[in-house]
Amino acid sequence: MSSPESNATDAAKRRAAVWAAAQIEDGMAVGLGSGSTSALVIEEVGRRVAEGLRIKAIATSEASQKLALELKIPMSDFAHLTHLDLTIDGADEVQEGTLYLIKGHGGALLREKIVAMASGRLLIAVDPRKLVKTLGSVFTLPVEVVPFGFETTVKRLRDLGFESELRMTDDGKPYVTDGQHYIVHCKLPQVGFDAVAGGEELKGTVGVVEHGLFLGMTSKVVIGRPEGIEVL
Amino acid sequence: MSSPESNATDAAKRRAAVWAAAQIEDGMAVGLGSGSTSALVIEEVGRRVAEGLRIKAIATSEASQKLALELKIPMSDFAHLTHLDLTIDGADEVQEGTLYLIKGHGGALLREKIVAMASGRLLIAVDPRKLVKTLGSVFTLPVEVVPFGFETTVKRLRDLGFESELRMTDDGKPYVTDGQHYIVHCKLPQVGFDAVAGGEELKGTVGVVEHGLFLGMTSKVVIGRPEGIEVL
Repeated sequence: MSSPESNATDAAKRRAAVWAAAQIEDGMAVGLGSGSTSALVIEEVGRRVAEGLRIKAIATSEASQKLALELKIPMSDFAHLTHLDLTIDGADEVQEGTLYLIKGHGGALLREKIVAMASGRLLIAVDPRKLVKTLGSVFTLPVEVVPFGFETTVKRLRDLGFESELRMTDDGKPYVTDGQHYIVHCKLPQVGFDAVAGGEELKGTVGVVEHGLFLGMTSKVVIGRPEGIEVL
Repeated sequence: MSSPESNATDAAKRRAAVWAAAQIEDGMAVGLGSGSTSALVIEEVGRRVAEGLRIKAIATSEASQKLALELKIPMSDFAHLTHLDLTIDGADEVQEGTLYLIKGHGGALLREKIVAMASGRLLIAVDPRKLVKTLGSVFTLPVEVVPFGFETTVKRLRDLGFESELRMTDDGKPYVTDGQHYIVHCKLPQVGFDAVAGGEELKGTVGVVEHGLFLGMTSKVVIGRPEGIEVL
């Protein structure tokens, strides 16, 4: 049984998802995100496709790809599309003011970032709990690392000042991403953290493939609220 | 039949390899490189281990790991060793003066860099043909990229000003590294190229895992010459 609170959150997510999916226009090349809100977006896109919307889409995770195919959304890939008009995705945290994001707790940050980079616009659909004043105040930052020598990479991340822990599965093994990498969860300093400089430092670290800071990439954020939607 | 020229090169490589292997001391944790000169180093290390040298080693490629195990060199991993005393590796190019390197035409640049970063010292063994005045004057720069969306990553590398081509195998498929990534060969500009800034730009590119510029990492370069060895 769902609690009243989670029902309210689900309704808020769905409201944001429906508004976001409505931004897709006929003929567009669309990036489909990952996570619970993105799943609702994909459902809504599937409904619109069944009604006659013509699009081509690329998914940011194996899970989203599977869902989209089940819903008969026409899927493509970067061998056939070099540019996307719009990507709709969720986020773990959205910083008010900057629209900086933390993404990747679903484990798909690398593909999400590659898809977002190929998109003219990035639309983020969230429920109100995702809004934060300071990045990292609720979530850690996922950092995708190469399995070989990950112990030395974690050490370098700690040397940079980030409290860092390898993400494990419930059966005690390292979590493995779609790209066959590991995820390290880094605590972001809550005072005086420069997200741009910190992001460059993380990406510049040997052994790091990508991190979940999405900075200066977001076009719009749609927030599902009990009374409707809000667009930032 | 080998030509006299390749015989001379082989002899020069072996001379550098034997000198490099002689730098290993009893009790050391050692990184073993990849490529033809590194294979000669590993042979020589195997000979010394058979004579009683006690070391623990980590290899930078599956091929080097296999050779080292055949020679009964005691192999370890980063779960057991967090620091290496010395890594011996080859290079595609060594810039005179700076000791900046291009590495990775053997396809192992990612592991080579992770191992080098974990090492107190990096000793590079080469034959004289590897010395260059300008990086990229003989070889392209290998850049390791994520397979997903590699087409968009190549486009970003071209937008940065690097002529970029995906490395293919003889049967027309993308070359796949030990880490399950692709390799893009980038031409380095031969005038006015700032290796440090260029390296940061490449590593900072979404979709790039690592590149083959090894800057400020080399402790010594040993060059095998017809008449002996030279150490830089």
